Amino acid sequence: MKTYGKKTWIIAEGYIPSYGNGPEPEFTSHETACILNTSSSKAEIEITLFFTDKDPVGPYKVIVDAQRTKHLRFNDLRNPEPVPLDTDYACVIESNVPIVVQHTRLDSRQAENALLTTIAYFE
Amino acid sequence: MKTYGKKTWIIAEGYIPSYGNGPEPEFTSHETACILNTSSSKAEIEITLFFTDKDPVGPYKVIVDAQRTKHLRFNDLRNPEPVPLDTDYACVIESNVPIVVQHTRLDSRQAENALLTTIAYFE
Amino acid sequence: MKTYGKKTWIIAEGYIPSYGNGPEPEFTSHETACILNTSSSKAEIEITLFFTDKDPVGPYKVIVDAQRTKHLRFNDLRNPEPVPLDTDYACVIESNVPIVVQHTRLDSRQAENALLTTIAYFE
Amino acid sequence: MKTYGKKTWIIAEGYIPSYGNGPEPEFTSHETACILNTSSSKAEIEITLFFTDKDPVGPYKVIVDAQRTKHLRFNDLRNPEPVPLDTDYACVIESNVPIVVQHTRLDSRQAENALLTTIAYFE
Repeated sequence: MKTYGKKTWIIAEGYIPSYGNGPEPEFTSHETACILNTSSSKAEIEITLFFTDKDPVGPYKVIVDAQRTKHLRFNDLRNPEPVPLDTDYACVIESNVPIVVQHTRLDSRQAENALLTTIAYFE
Repeated sequence: MKTYGKKTWIIAEGYIPSYGNGPEPEFTSHETACILNTSSSKAEIEITLFFTDKDPVGPYKVIVDAQRTKHLRFNDLRNPEPVPLDTDYACVIESNVPIVVQHTRLDSRQAENALLTTIAYFE
Repeated sequence: MKTYGKKTWIIAEGYIPSYGNGPEPEFTSHETACILNTSSSKAEIEITLFFTDKDPVGPYKVIVDAQRTKHLRFNDLRNPEPVPLDTDYACVIESNVPIVVQHTRLDSRQAENALLTTIAYFE
Repeated sequence: MKTYGKKTWIIAEGYIPSYGNGPEPEFTSHETACILNTSSSKAEIEITLFFTDKDPVGPYKVIVDAQRTKHLRFNDLRNPEPVPLDTDYACVIESNVPIVVQHTRLDSRQAENALLTTIAYFE
């Protein structure tokens, strides 16, 4: 299969609620970057986080193997530091091979969960 | 009418919950690729699924007749194999004529359904 | 102000639930094409609907005045015929001047409403 | 880091419900333009609002500092005048440096909140 996608993706809306309802981990409030690597090479990805009132943090390094998808929860990022909860952020995702990125959030702060998604901005 | 669209579409976010609430089939948790074929020819479409930790599966073959729309539920795909539930996936949708693809999910795991949609990524 | 947008827009996902909950008209289940005309001329718009198993219907004619927005409910289309409820459809929106189109649905079939939106596909 | 984005963004769907449920300010019904400025210069942004039946209002002036994100609630705009509630609107967002804009709404009119998001239209 041909390799599809772009090397740079941006999600301007980021916010992980600090609490949720329902069985974990499915109903933990979470924010996800769904990444698809259709290429025949491993994707070496660097994520930089931007905030309202402090300097950017990163890079967070993520690997997505050839011809695999990874639905990356921002909640799981640990290095260089966890993503702060209840805090506005945005991110730039840069890869060494073309990938496709879609942004999703499940918000379970109230009894019934809410969902949002969009294909990210790319260049 | 002019023919609109592109021949390749990608949805990076895929996940079909294994359960739901409410009357079926409207409130069965489902994931849909809404496909529009404005051309005057039958669209012969091949879908390939990508996973986190196994090789891609496909092609799934789908026909959308000339000047028709098909709201394809991934739940209904059977050949070469059903789409696994509660499992992250992504997909590449390739057509022999231009089409337009929009991705929608209805999640009815909790008492009140949640919805998401986005125009898919295209090349 | 400069004129922004494109002349052709496509929404592949269309479905108006036949019932809803909550005070009307805000909580009537509805599907909307939000149209913005930034130009200094009246936008003369034609909408064609596509279905799963019958020929396209249209054009539905809509006017959006210069420098105005119109949040058009598909529920309100009457001529040549109302949009059938509980039925999959898709649409092509063609304008004589550039416009921007965003697709939104409010689904109030259950006690708590659900929302979806996406910028439409354009050419 | 390279500067990413475009200088003009459009959100065709705008509507701020006049009431909500749940603890404020998180669960106040609100509409947000999430703006990311990856450049090394301050972004000077002008927002113009469009309505159904009156002339455009603006510009609203907003600053997003270099390498910062701002999740701007339309509810908070005050000058030249507050955004009317329960009223359809649309907006054009123009910046002197490239930015990325994503549109989100939290609707808390009913007991359980609903969410929508999309990357805005750009030129």
